[in-house]
Amino acid sequence: MLLPEGVIIDGTTGAVTPETRHYTKRLSELRGLFQDDHAFAEAMDRGDAVVYEVAEYRKENSDIFFGTTTMYPGKVGKEYYFTRGHFHQRRDMGEVYYAQSGAGILLLESRDGRAEAVEMRPGVCAFIPPDWAHRTVNVGDDKFVFVWVCNPQAGHDYADIQRKGMRLAVIEQGGRPAVVDNSKYLSS
Amino acid sequence: MLLPEGVIIDGTTGAVTPETRHYTKRLSELRGLFQDDHAFAEAMDRGDAVVYEVAEYRKENSDIFFGTTTMYPGKVGKEYYFTRGHFHQRRDMGEVYYAQSGAGILLLESRDGRAEAVEMRPGVCAFIPPDWAHRTVNVGDDKFVFVWVCNPQAGHDYADIQRKGMRLAVIEQGGRPAVVDNSKYLSS
Repeated sequence: MLLPEGVIIDGTTGAVTPETRHYTKRLSELRGLFQDDHAFAEAMDRGDAVVYEVAEYRKENSDIFFGTTTMYPGKVGKEYYFTRGHFHQRRDMGEVYYAQSGAGILLLESRDGRAEAVEMRPGVCAFIPPDWAHRTVNVGDDKFVFVWVCNPQAGHDYADIQRKGMRLAVIEQGGRPAVVDNSKYLSS
Repeated sequence: MLLPEGVIIDGTTGAVTPETRHYTKRLSELRGLFQDDHAFAEAMDRGDAVVYEVAEYRKENSDIFFGTTTMYPGKVGKEYYFTRGHFHQRRDMGEVYYAQSGAGILLLESRDGRAEAVEMRPGVCAFIPPDWAHRTVNVGDDKFVFVWVCNPQAGHDYADIQRKGMRLAVIEQGGRPAVVDNSKYLSS
C-alpha cells in the first residue's frame, strides 16, 4: 500500500531525505552542447567536473513525483553550466520548477521554435507548459537548487535538443549573465 | 498558446504573483467539523474568522497546476484550525504539499481507514498518495503556508469527510499540539 511521507528538502544543498534515486551529470555527458568546443576541451583537461545532481522521490503507482536538481557553478569559456535540456516524451505533460537557492535562468522552447527565458531567483515557481523543452542554467557563484514536480510518466526526450541545441544560450558579458542567440543552434 | 511563466511565491505571506484564482474559507464553512460544538458557537460569536486562503496558478490544457494555502493561527476550543479536508475525485491522482513557513500537521486517511499524521515544518515536502484524504492543521502562532502541486483534474470530493470527519484530530494539550482520535469520527 502506498503510504504518505514527509520528505525533507534542503533548499541549500538540494538533499532529499529519503530519496529513491540520485544521479550525477558530468561535463563529458554534455559534450557538443556548449558553443565553444575549444573551451570545452580545455575544461575537460582540468577534469570531468560534476555539472549537476538530481535527487528523486518517486513511488510506483502515483501520478506525481518530485525531487531537486542541484547545479554547480561554472562556465565553459563564457557559457554558464547548464542541464542537458529535454522535451517530455509525453507531449501532454508539463512541469513545475521552484527555485530554492542560488541564481538560475530557465530556458524554454516550444516545438515551433518560440523561445523564452525565465529568471530563477529563490521564490520563483516556474510553470513549464506541456511540450516546451526546458534547460536550466546556473548563472551564480554558488549552487543553484530547485525543486521540480511532474508526472513520472512524462519521460525525457533528449534527442531533439542533443541534435539541434536550444535557440538561446546564457553567457557572461561584462561580468553578468546575458541571454543571447545560440550560435550552434540548428533551425531544422 | 500556453506560455511559460515565472510565478513569484512568498513563502511567508502565501502570495502568488500572478494568481489566477483566490478564495477564502471562513469558520462558518467548517461548521460541524470541530469536536466541540459549544466552543464553535462561542468562536462564531466573536466573528466569522478567516481560517485559510488559497491562491492558485492554473492554466487551461496543462496537466499540472500549483498554488499556496495560507492558514491563520487559531483554535476552536482546544482544537487547532484546520482545512476542510477532502479526497480527490480522481482516485488515481495524488498531490505534493511543500511547507514554507509556520508549523503545521498534515492529517491523512486512506479509504480503508488507515490514518497518518505528518509534521509540516518548513522544508518538509509531503507526498500524498492517490486516494488518501488530506487535511492540514495550523499548530503554530503564526501563519502556516505551504505550496501544493497536483493535476487540475484531481478535483475535490468533500462529502465523505464532511459526513464522517477524519479519524485524527489535533488539539492543544499542555500548551503543545497532540494528535488524538477524533471523538466525532463516524466509522461508517
